[in-house]
Order: sequence, then structure tokens, then C-alpha cells
Amino acid sequence: MTSTWFSRDTASTPHGEGVRRLSLSERWLTPFGKVNGGYILASMLRGLGEEIGRDDPVVASVTFLSPARVGEAELRCRSLKKGRRIHTAQADLMAGDKLLATLTASFGGRREGQLYQGLPAPNLPSPDECVDPIPDTMLRRGLLERVAQATPTPPGWSLGAPTGDPVIDGWQLLEDGTEVSPPALALLTDSFVSTCFELGEYSTTTLQLTVHLYAAPAPGWLATRMSTRYLEGGLHDENCELWDRDGVLVAQARQLQLLT
Amino acid sequence: MTSTWFSRDTASTPHGEGVRRLSLSERWLTPFGKVNGGYILASMLRGLGEEIGRDDPVVASVTFLSPARVGEAELRCRSLKKGRRIHTAQADLMAGDKLLATLTASFGGRREGQLYQGLPAPNLPSPDECVDPIPDTMLRRGLLERVAQATPTPPGWSLGAPTGDPVIDGWQLLEDGTEVSPPALALLTDSFVSTCFELGEYSTTTLQLTVHLYAAPAPGWLATRMSTRYLEGGLHDENCELWDRDGVLVAQARQLQLLT
Repeated sequence: MTSTWFSRDTASTPHGEGVRRLSLSERWLTPFGKVNGGYILASMLRGLGEEIGRDDPVVASVTFLSPARVGEAELRCRSLKKGRRIHTAQADLMAGDKLLATLTASFGGRREGQLYQGLPAPNLPSPDECVDPIPDTMLRRGLLERVAQATPTPPGWSLGAPTGDPVIDGWQLLEDGTEVSPPALALLTDSFVSTCFELGEYSTTTLQLTVHLYAAPAPGWLATRMSTRYLEGGLHDENCELWDRDGVLVAQARQLQLLT
Repeated sequence: MTSTWFSRDTASTPHGEGVRRLSLSERWLTPFGKVNGGYILASMLRGLGEEIGRDDPVVASVTFLSPARVGEAELRCRSLKKGRRIHTAQADLMAGDKLLATLTASFGGRREGQLYQGLPAPNLPSPDECVDPIPDTMLRRGLLERVAQATPTPPGWSLGAPTGDPVIDGWQLLEDGTEVSPPALALLTDSFVSTCFELGEYSTTTLQLTVHLYAAPAPGWLATRMSTRYLEGGLHDENCELWDRDGVLVAQARQLQLLT
């Protein structure tokens, strides 16, 4: 892993018996001042993988319990089953005695085989023909300094006119874009503009996020589709698909979010 | 809950300190003789809910570790956080010392609010104008006796000619269909004909399944869309959306499956 902010800020150190220590950085705060959930997932997934000696996660499922704060935290890892094909493990993220998040992830499982891809990448102009979807009124710090975003046109919400159609296609680039590890790919499923903004809902928090990690992307920009298909009773989904520049579907994720 | 096979076969009894005992029934075997994953999830989710006194799960995420067998099993439940809005808990399903599956589920969280539904129900003929998609060559036992299925036309795979297009729309009816509890809804996201059959892949097993439970369905048949969007390297997704007869999206789920 090259020395990027991502690699520095998701590092953890082992302290025996499955315990690892890490520091949640202010460099991944959302514009609303929260520690980004994708960054938390990436830190947990990387730490858990290093603890069990695996770097090939295929699915990761995290539930958030309490808001995280910038600063020291502890990861408590446990291996559940080390099978011939799949290794599954869990990790809890703690701040003192407070449980912040719990992760279940499975590593391995890939083998040679047939390809079927039924979800083509969105037809987007190149990133340099796109615009930055983040309006000047939004505080550009943390996450927005780490992950560049580009959309064909400004999203309705960014012009003060939510479209009512919660689907946004665009591009993302993590830092220099030279290498996207599986934990970084997991982060990028939760870093883009939230589609429920297009429904006029700006205050939402992730309860649960499951990510499928299919392939290592080609370096560079990732095509990103975000969509909300359901919002009722203060709950909504948020779906993310990521394709690399070769059109390969490299990850997909779904969240259940709560309006706050 | 009325006394159906479902209610009998997903029951568990508390034995203190979060431990519940249950019996996995042969009445929910797949045509291939495996204990259905949706039935396992339903049993775990119901038991966990009863243990913490909640019947309103909104998201459930299960990872399967070892194949389950018909017979006695134990559920080990733990509450992770009982918040004002959300109660999150975990349960491990054990057969002796062997961990079969681990579940994280969150209960509560619904409140009054706006409705947006961006995913319309498939346009299907009524169930009595549909056909049974299960060919006579398939052993009709267990799950197939509990959940009726109906599709507009026979799926390609059932005629020995997989279409290569892994999307199947149809109807499902659990037993008498009078009541579908949230655990039963979870089961129905994993009970329908598998779409990877249409890719000529018949031997697959679920690694991970996350279900969003949005609403209690109106009684009766549920419209069901199954789809696979990715298959490579022995891994594939399988997506399920369920709508009630009023066209309300009541649940959606995604699995990561392994070709075996």
C-alpha cells in the first residue's frame, strides 16, 4: 500500500488477543462534521484482515451503534471460521467501553470461472467534462478533500432544487487514484453525494451497510451510481455500484439509513 | 401468530443467559436436501427478537459458516445496544460446538414520514393465470410444499434451456398466506427459484444475506423479483425484492453466494 492519507489513517497496531489500536482521523469527516461511515468500515475491515492475515475480503457487513469521534479507538477481532475456501471473522470497534460498530466479514472464496455482468456502467462523459457536484456553500474539508467527485451536471439539490429522483451517476477518485485496496473500495461505496438529498432529506445516518467486493479496480476514476429506492417511516435505502474505467463492476453496496 | 408450520418450526425456548433452544425441521429442506437459508434466518431472527422482546426488525444480516442439519440447535443471543430509537442485537446459531451462522439485526426505528417508492412492482398476470415454475423432475418436498410459487411462463432452466438472463419475476405464497411476520418475510427473500439457474449454475450456497424489512405486507401472494447482476470467480450476487398485492415494496435483500 502506498503511503497515502488513506493508508496512514486506516492503520492499526496489534496488541495481542485480537485487540488492535487505531486513531480515527479528522481527515475523513463529512461536510456535516461526522466521521464518515465508509472510512470507519475501511479501517475496521483493514484491521480485521491484517489480524487474521487476509487481504481478500469479498463481503463486509457493518452495523453502526454509536456515533464515532475523532481520536483513539480499539478494534476487538475474533476469527469465527477458517475454512478451506472462506475465512469469516468479526470485529467490534470500541471507544473506551462504548461499542461504536460491529463488522462481520468473509475473506477468500474466489476461483476461476465464468463471467456474467448484467449491470452495465453508466454512460458518463469523461471526468474532465464533468462538474464538481459540491456547491460552494458546503464546507470542503475532510472526506471532500480526500475523494474527488464529478457529475455530468450539478445535482438538483446542489442548486437548491431537489429533483425528487434519487439517482445520481458520477465519478470518484480517491486521492491519487493509483491503488484502490479492498478496504478503500469499501470506503468508496459510502463517500459519494447522498441520493436522499434529491428527496429534500439532508439529515440521515447509516444504521447498516453491506458491501460486496468483486474485483480490484483498474487505477483511476471509478464510475459510481447512487440510488434510493425506498423511503418511508424515517427509513431509506441507499445503493451504490462502482465500476472501474474498463466498465468492470468492482463493488456494490446497500445501506439502511435513518432520517435524523 | 397463527399455528402454521412456519410458526411451529421457527419456535425456540429460552434457557437463560441469552441461550434459546430450537429444532431445525425437515419441513424446510430445499429440493437439494439442504436446510433452507431463509428458514434458518427466520428462526434466528424470531428467536433473537423474542429474547430481547422486539418484533419490529428493520434490517437483518446473516453469515453462514457451516451447513446446518435437521435437528436440535442452540441460539446464543446478546444485546449490543438498546437505544431510544434502535435496538441492535446479535445471535449465533450453534449445533453442539459448531458455529452454523451469525446474525446481526436491528429493531425499531420507524416513525411517521414521507413516502418515496422508486421501484414499481413487476407487471404480472394474476397468480391463477401463472404456472408453477418447478418442473416435475424436481423433488417436491420441504420448502416447495410450504411456499407456493407461480411465474407467468416456465423459466428457461425448468425446460432444460437456461436463458442466460438471470432475472425471474413471479409470485410467492407462504402456506395459507394469512399472516406474514417479519421473520417470514425474511424467509421469503430466500425461498424463490434461484436466478443463477438461468446461467446454467445449479450448485450454489449462500455465504451472506442482508435483508431490509420495510413494511408488513397485505395478506396473500407476494410479487417477487429475483436477479443476479454479477457472477465471476465462483461468486455471484442474488437480489430479491418483494411487493405485496397492493404494490408496496415490503422487503429487499441481497446475497453473496458461492458456486460449489
